[in-house]
Amino acid sequence: MREIYFDNSATTKQLNIVSRVMVQTAEKYYGNPSSLHILGYEAEKELRRNRQIFSALMNCDEKEIVFTSGGSESNNLAIIGYARANPRKGNHVMVTETEHPSVLECARYLSEQGYNVEYIPVDKNGIPDLEWIRDKVNEKTVLVSVQHVNSETGSILPVKEICKAIKAKNENTAFHTDCVQSFGKLRIDIKDLNCDMLSISAHKIGGPRGIGALYVKRGIRIEPVIFGGGQEGGLRSGTENLPGIAGFAEVARIACGNLEENHEKVKEIRDYVAKELGKEKRVHVISNLESSLPYILNVAFEGIKGEVLLHSLEAKGVYVSTGSACSTRKSKRSHVLSAMNIPNNIIDGAIRISFSSQNTLDEAVEAVGIIKEEVSMLRRTR
Amino acid sequence: MREIYFDNSATTKQLNIVSRVMVQTAEKYYGNPSSLHILGYEAEKELRRNRQIFSALMNCDEKEIVFTSGGSESNNLAIIGYARANPRKGNHVMVTETEHPSVLECARYLSEQGYNVEYIPVDKNGIPDLEWIRDKVNEKTVLVSVQHVNSETGSILPVKEICKAIKAKNENTAFHTDCVQSFGKLRIDIKDLNCDMLSISAHKIGGPRGIGALYVKRGIRIEPVIFGGGQEGGLRSGTENLPGIAGFAEVARIACGNLEENHEKVKEIRDYVAKELGKEKRVHVISNLESSLPYILNVAFEGIKGEVLLHSLEAKGVYVSTGSACSTRKSKRSHVLSAMNIPNNIIDGAIRISFSSQNTLDEAVEAVGIIKEEVSMLRRTR
Repeated sequence: MREIYFDNSATTKQLNIVSRVMVQTAEKYYGNPSSLHILGYEAEKELRRNRQIFSALMNCDEKEIVFTSGGSESNNLAIIGYARANPRKGNHVMVTETEHPSVLECARYLSEQGYNVEYIPVDKNGIPDLEWIRDKVNEKTVLVSVQHVNSETGSILPVKEICKAIKAKNENTAFHTDCVQSFGKLRIDIKDLNCDMLSISAHKIGGPRGIGALYVKRGIRIEPVIFGGGQEGGLRSGTENLPGIAGFAEVARIACGNLEENHEKVKEIRDYVAKELGKEKRVHVISNLESSLPYILNVAFEGIKGEVLLHSLEAKGVYVSTGSACSTRKSKRSHVLSAMNIPNNIIDGAIRISFSSQNTLDEAVEAVGIIKEEVSMLRRTR
Repeated sequence: MREIYFDNSATTKQLNIVSRVMVQTAEKYYGNPSSLHILGYEAEKELRRNRQIFSALMNCDEKEIVFTSGGSESNNLAIIGYARANPRKGNHVMVTETEHPSVLECARYLSEQGYNVEYIPVDKNGIPDLEWIRDKVNEKTVLVSVQHVNSETGSILPVKEICKAIKAKNENTAFHTDCVQSFGKLRIDIKDLNCDMLSISAHKIGGPRGIGALYVKRGIRIEPVIFGGGQEGGLRSGTENLPGIAGFAEVARIACGNLEENHEKVKEIRDYVAKELGKEKRVHVISNLESSLPYILNVAFEGIKGEVLLHSLEAKGVYVSTGSACSTRKSKRSHVLSAMNIPNNIIDGAIRISFSSQNTLDEAVEAVGIIKEEVSMLRRTR
């Protein structure tokens, strides 16, 4: 049976070239960048070369890139690290209702520490209201965190405009954006965005698991969440995972270098799937095709449990997810779709179909056929 | 020129078999363990299989193993995580003066948070005084952290006895031990040690960088330092780095399976180097050969700067370190040797020669010849 992997927003298959780069880096640069001898120096130079790949891709300075163990750590470092380093800038924090658990749980932690946390509502397309945000930002607002792309629906949030609106109201409010789902898929120009912190991750675009980065604008003070030897400019201690970083840089270079072609290709696949499934009765295409990232398509099958359909599809070799896979097997209703005011009976039938540039239209045609069959079978047997 | 890598306590060269296992795991288990479909289930099963390798090697329950991004994170999770989860158990914390920066910096952080942190002194062999510790533990002592093996000298600290003494005085005091330098080199039996938390790392024994683990005894409550999707029993969020974990398990299995043979082999190498260098004038073998781990040999060359000798040796292909490489290029005097009351003029001439089971006696013979030559050259040119 052919495997059709449409769960790429949970994690992607690591590219072979990434594996090769990682093994080569482990073999060649086996010194510790902190060691004073030439093997340490060469490892440090290679670390720097990789850092520069990111600063070039995102239009920032190499010293503004902090490597972490992944997107979750990046979000923690941004939110908790910034709040901790800037206690006098206020105790009001805002995050979108539809953020990833690693942002929401940091917000919850800050709220336990006495911060006043407000959740930014979204409309039916998953987009926050700029006026609402502008209205809420005040002189005590220390930090606002808004994701670039939602992991369950693909909604693209207008982070540049949000950042601008916030800064216009309080120039001291820091703005962080979680770009884990957009990095390598949408062009990210940090100078243009003008954000203060920005999280990215490797394993959503064919890179290794266990590696990510946080952009921290020069002049922005954050405190570490992992203390120790003072690596990464004192912001993230622990021996640098150079093979992981090199694999990440390799995949970042590939993804950003083929961004437009990949986008077109994936859009064709997504549009086909959305169009074909949208023709069916009691099927709701939740993702807004006009304004969302084509890598993620959320579709609901009214009257069918998403989880039942998921298992029905896996039996035919098609792998999708219900909601986000980033929170571990909690079978609760999607907080994202709830925030978008989608009725519960539709949320319960929602699945996320998420693509990568490795997928083909051919796979989409086959998968659509299988989905239609399974849905029809499930409807009959109810 | 032949390369003789004697800086294995900074980091080791990744074994080829580890690279292979990592690549295979990335290829085969590319699903997200949190995904509900079979690829997620298989990844979760593989994660569990690897977890069981650690619980079997260390004699604990699989549920007591929390995978992290490395030794530094493990130490942070243990110390900050425990203190945060147990605010009512007291505000007195003790750590050894000679701990790794990731322990010392956590202690400093806690002291900034209002904890009363005491530093356990050591004798000239790097060993803390049991009576001193017993004396200091009181009803407010929430946590004591004592390393198993010191990274600069190889001193083996009597953690089992220390743990016992602490528990006898206050059974509610938690005991954590940093075993990053001992794991895979000394047999670790957690039931026998009876500690509450224990940190290990992969890259000191030929495993990948960016992966480690923390043992947390059942019933011990800790809070995360990285919040999010709730992976690792809610204690460490972020998509699991399964290839890294599999590489770690592979190298752990190999190291623990050959522990005694490796120990004998490395002891022969270390004893040869110590004996040969010890014959020279104004050379001080700082590591106590009777009671320290043979993987680490600290030797001081009076009248020569350790860093000068290091660079002189690297020019001949021999790689050693001054003090620990785990703190980034800070050229300050070793806090470990200072704590051992070694005079400054000797500390300044100290180098750390650290071995792995991949090293040979042949390399040691060649390196000793080179060290003698370089030392004699440096003494002449002063």
